[in-house]
Amino acid sequence: MKPLEKKAITKKSENLSEWYTDVILKAELADYAPVKGCMVIRPYGYAMWEAVQKFMDPLIKEKGVENAYFPLFIPEKYLEMEKEHVEGFAPHMAVVTIAGGEKLQERLVVRPTSETIMYDMYKKWTSSWRDLPVRMNQWNNIVRWEKRTYLFLRTSEFLWQEGHCAHMTHEESQETVFWAMEMYRKTYNELMAIYGIVGEKSDSEKFAGGNKTYTFEALMPDGKALQACTSHDLGQNFSKVFDWTVQDKEGKNVHPWQNSWGFSTRSLGGLFLTHGDDQGTVIPPNIAPIQVVIIPIKPESVEYCQGIFADLESENIRVKIDNRDTKSVGWKFNEWELKGVPVRIEIGQKEIESGELTVYRRDKGEKFKMQKSKVKIEVKTVLEEIQKNLFNNHKEFTEKNTFVVDSYDEFKTIMKTTRGFIRAFWCEDKECEAKIKEETKATTRCLPLGAVSEKGKCIYCGKPATHRWLFAQAY
Amino acid sequence: MKPLEKKAITKKSENLSEWYTDVILKAELADYAPVKGCMVIRPYGYAMWEAVQKFMDPLIKEKGVENAYFPLFIPEKYLEMEKEHVEGFAPHMAVVTIAGGEKLQERLVVRPTSETIMYDMYKKWTSSWRDLPVRMNQWNNIVRWEKRTYLFLRTSEFLWQEGHCAHMTHEESQETVFWAMEMYRKTYNELMAIYGIVGEKSDSEKFAGGNKTYTFEALMPDGKALQACTSHDLGQNFSKVFDWTVQDKEGKNVHPWQNSWGFSTRSLGGLFLTHGDDQGTVIPPNIAPIQVVIIPIKPESVEYCQGIFADLESENIRVKIDNRDTKSVGWKFNEWELKGVPVRIEIGQKEIESGELTVYRRDKGEKFKMQKSKVKIEVKTVLEEIQKNLFNNHKEFTEKNTFVVDSYDEFKTIMKTTRGFIRAFWCEDKECEAKIKEETKATTRCLPLGAVSEKGKCIYCGKPATHRWLFAQAY
Repeated sequence: MKPLEKKAITKKSENLSEWYTDVILKAELADYAPVKGCMVIRPYGYAMWEAVQKFMDPLIKEKGVENAYFPLFIPEKYLEMEKEHVEGFAPHMAVVTIAGGEKLQERLVVRPTSETIMYDMYKKWTSSWRDLPVRMNQWNNIVRWEKRTYLFLRTSEFLWQEGHCAHMTHEESQETVFWAMEMYRKTYNELMAIYGIVGEKSDSEKFAGGNKTYTFEALMPDGKALQACTSHDLGQNFSKVFDWTVQDKEGKNVHPWQNSWGFSTRSLGGLFLTHGDDQGTVIPPNIAPIQVVIIPIKPESVEYCQGIFADLESENIRVKIDNRDTKSVGWKFNEWELKGVPVRIEIGQKEIESGELTVYRRDKGEKFKMQKSKVKIEVKTVLEEIQKNLFNNHKEFTEKNTFVVDSYDEFKTIMKTTRGFIRAFWCEDKECEAKIKEETKATTRCLPLGAVSEKGKCIYCGKPATHRWLFAQAY
Repeated sequence: MKPLEKKAITKKSENLSEWYTDVILKAELADYAPVKGCMVIRPYGYAMWEAVQKFMDPLIKEKGVENAYFPLFIPEKYLEMEKEHVEGFAPHMAVVTIAGGEKLQERLVVRPTSETIMYDMYKKWTSSWRDLPVRMNQWNNIVRWEKRTYLFLRTSEFLWQEGHCAHMTHEESQETVFWAMEMYRKTYNELMAIYGIVGEKSDSEKFAGGNKTYTFEALMPDGKALQACTSHDLGQNFSKVFDWTVQDKEGKNVHPWQNSWGFSTRSLGGLFLTHGDDQGTVIPPNIAPIQVVIIPIKPESVEYCQGIFADLESENIRVKIDNRDTKSVGWKFNEWELKGVPVRIEIGQKEIESGELTVYRRDKGEKFKMQKSKVKIEVKTVLEEIQKNLFNNHKEFTEKNTFVVDSYDEFKTIMKTTRGFIRAFWCEDKECEAKIKEETKATTRCLPLGAVSEKGKCIYCGKPATHRWLFAQAY
């Protein structure tokens, strides 16, 4: 809105961080809320979260995981039951101390994650192996108080889905952990056109209260990594502290094996960072709320535009005509480029007479002609090409900025200059990890799945190491 | 789960309130949470909330209202800006006073409704008539602290949608207010098979901060009314206190006209109360997560069942085979009756040999035969009939329990015995309304839309009155 305001944005090539904030605000994806660290997700941005839900929710249900809703508030003592869990989350808690005009006897924490409140109920609902697996998911809001916030990427409140399953065996639980990661990889690759590395977190980077954490790490244009979602093998940690057992087939009491996995609105921050350019965002067609915008060059071409609109809509293409008479054609071009709409069709007298439409491809910034008679098929093809092109670009960028490094000097130089992913041997000692972080700001992002065992020397201390870990500075 | 537990429930005819709680818990619709006044919505119950979203969300979008997300927390001073608004909500606020380990300078209220935080942003985003209307909706969670709670019907946290629109004129705003009510009526009638009366609230019953509130009032089996959703004409109250103006076409600054409208998980409580019987819930087919359950009488009939399953699924009927070998056939019959699945198909040797399936209709408790070859068409017809029958039953019940009353003695007698809706003249004086409430527990539920102007005398004071209002005791 505020239509007369100038929409100039900082160039992406000059200052990524300012460009990002400009784009988020001016493309009306989100805005700062009057509550510190919180944001408003505006309709254009929220539509992309709905697209994530539409893509992922059927995959979750197909797996036999059912949606449910657990309370926003968690009694403080629940969070305190698992020692590592409370240590991890305590600094980020928002606490309700007054309700209904009275001071509460028991303080309530606004959920920073729902393990504890969900598993208390799981315990209540189950007594035998017949009741397992329990597989539930919720789409909800989460609060983790943050001092330094960043639109979408780090906000005190965010939206996500959290899946929580409990199984009779560790094998079954692990299978679910990997299934979730594979679903997330698919969502990033196919919906968001984002490439990334799936792997296992080091002990110091894993989820507070879990045994193992798996992650999808995506490289951003400034060479920093975004931890884009996680899936946790919780072992029997929570079932033990909640004293939750079920009878197995032999009548023995056993603690269920659990996992949890989450994907949040942070992903949208990754999306906007990854694909934009100096003109604004570039939204991959599969997640774009508007895939094609049709702009009548003269008011007389509106009727003709409506024919094209109907053609495209009949193919389930998400299409919009911008026939506002309060804006110039040039203003509209800028606006839809800023908003990253993948394809623009311009229709003026020339196009009507020749039957050849002028088509603009946002990802390449190229204009070309398209026969009106072929618009249904060809627009579809162009959208598919854009989706592929964006993914390939990001994959290529990631590969170009992934360095196999065996010298700590080189490691330091890379982290001081271009940044990027570094594949380096690490002895898996926490102290080396901490020192590297201190000296280079780079952390272990993950041990990539399928990494081969090799003989090597720790990049920091020189002691024997068996795997190349992935290092990067992180968002 | 807990499969061996006895599922006996109180009879609906004997004690509605105990029956209701039994059914909610034992049909696994919801459960009490470990936080006072809060509940867990279990998958079977949550699937019905998803059905509401699936029904209503496209209607909202069709109107041009866009989904968005605003923060959970509202600075206390925002709520205090509108005097009636804060008075209405202050007793129900949950307040965050500590976050990130520190005492907050400014206390944050967990949203009891989002008018204030949304309109502050609307003001920021608009400057001219070109920017209006602003039309947004969010599906979110709400906290209103309650002393006495009741599963689904009154919980300290609930889920809802809240739509908030701002327009240049009062007429446009009113049009939206009525559009929302019509959408709600449609949802109740067509999805939930619930009949009800749409009307305007009296001043003392309207939304805190609004000018006029419209409501859908549904009569429950105990003769009490459920306020099932509301739509508010907010006038210019909020735009004035937020000092929000936009320029009109003549360049004059004007305060936008606003409305808000909400529909919550309370509706599910109404659904379960309305349609159940002594055997448990009866879920109307259009909202039922499982419309048809197929029960193999012998393990050998499972394969045959799968054929029927495929036939029904190909017609987009939501169907399930219960082939658990850990449960008896009788147990399964009880279970699915308790859960209110509209149609049960029983398949044993007899059915396989004759090609005639045994079909049980949950609403009427009747069994009949159906040719296997006709199952696709006939099951569809039966589901449609059940949907209609449930709605007609509720409409008939409501009409039978609506009384036109002109004597206060009769009024009191009805409210002491059968209860129900009473249509009686009221002079529209707050004092009479308060006295009637005090003496009979009945409140004005609404002035039904389209109520004709008549000459009458107030049922309480005898002074002239022009309309018959709808009275009832309320949930």
